Amino acid sequence: MSDADTAIVLLSGGLDSATILAMARAEGRHCIALTFSYGQRCLAELEATRRIAAAMNVRDHHLIHLEPSAFGGSALTGDAPVPKLDAPPTDHTRIPITYVPARNIVFLAHGLAWSESVGASEIFIGVNAVDYSGYPDCRPRFIDAFQHMIDVGTRGGVEQNSVRIRAPLIDLPKHEIIRRGLDLGVDYALTMSCYDPDARGLSCGNCESCRIRRDAFAKLRIEDPVPYAA
Amino acid sequence: MSDADTAIVLLSGGLDSATILAMARAEGRHCIALTFSYGQRCLAELEATRRIAAAMNVRDHHLIHLEPSAFGGSALTGDAPVPKLDAPPTDHTRIPITYVPARNIVFLAHGLAWSESVGASEIFIGVNAVDYSGYPDCRPRFIDAFQHMIDVGTRGGVEQNSVRIRAPLIDLPKHEIIRRGLDLGVDYALTMSCYDPDARGLSCGNCESCRIRRDAFAKLRIEDPVPYAA
Repeated sequence: MSDADTAIVLLSGGLDSATILAMARAEGRHCIALTFSYGQRCLAELEATRRIAAAMNVRDHHLIHLEPSAFGGSALTGDAPVPKLDAPPTDHTRIPITYVPARNIVFLAHGLAWSESVGASEIFIGVNAVDYSGYPDCRPRFIDAFQHMIDVGTRGGVEQNSVRIRAPLIDLPKHEIIRRGLDLGVDYALTMSCYDPDARGLSCGNCESCRIRRDAFAKLRIEDPVPYAA
Repeated sequence: MSDADTAIVLLSGGLDSATILAMARAEGRHCIALTFSYGQRCLAELEATRRIAAAMNVRDHHLIHLEPSAFGGSALTGDAPVPKLDAPPTDHTRIPITYVPARNIVFLAHGLAWSESVGASEIFIGVNAVDYSGYPDCRPRFIDAFQHMIDVGTRGGVEQNSVRIRAPLIDLPKHEIIRRGLDLGVDYALTMSCYDPDARGLSCGNCESCRIRRDAFAKLRIEDPVPYAA
């Protein structure tokens, strides 16, 4: 069941995950894309994953349903309002309200189970510790700690053949991520970055995720192909 | 949302998980028991969790359905036969066929998401590295690595208030686990240890898990209250 050319790609529908999918494909990997539904308010994200996978000819795309109750206590799943630009700027010494408990840990754990089941050698995850919202599970030391846990806690690790976590965006500024994605032909019109799109699925343009994205496109002097409500 | 008296207990229906549930309750914790269905052949396990939770008056018992496809490649979920006593003895330098890819990692990840969501301070898991089947995710260094990953990758960790993993059985021989459980009033008749029960739900008596259990009861000179097919 070993297939060293296969990679698991965690596909959320945002700009970062579309970019890592393009990177994995550019390396010639057979990609299995995993998308998680976990009660997030933003169903437009899930639609975006379908568009991205289709555009990149990824037929192995699986939607994994997780119990929404496990992810309570976050603005992205609950009823608390998503902070907007007129809120105080992000203080990276504090965890923002949009933090979802253990989200990347749960996603990576499932990616790991898939990897061991199908014999994939790597898991691509689009975490980024530069232009980000201050989540603890987006930092290099978290990725390193998860890798160590794989190395000591899985069959592959014991057999000196661990599944590797690949986080190729972790130290890149957002505009550099976009530049690399454009070089690989990523169509960012298909992606959805907004934490709080409106009923039509339009990005709000005003939440922290929209702001980081718009600033990055502005820095590149490229028009963001995604339409905004405001 | 903090509730330091709440503990998440991973309840599989086996002897070990029944014992840790009793231990958490003996410490006066409010227990939320989580049971996972992941396509395991052994549905009798899930029935056992219901009996155990009911007997211990644990009303917060949640069955979490996971995608079975994520756990392919194991004798406990697939079609490969479960090894019996007449097979060669376990070689702990090799991972047995009953290893389920990343199982404890996925379970702990979900337990962690629940813990952060409800403000529980600890996760009890019944892993044991003495009388066990040689799984890499049952060893102290795996638990230590998962704890470190929590410490660097979660809100609680950043705020110096990590969810703690409790593995109180990890260094106990099986007969000592049973002795402690009996002291706490655990009714082991309600538990199900067998990897391969028959159609009536009777334990085979012959797989490695049954063998370890029967040896432990024999060592205590106590009759195992579970009936066996053979």
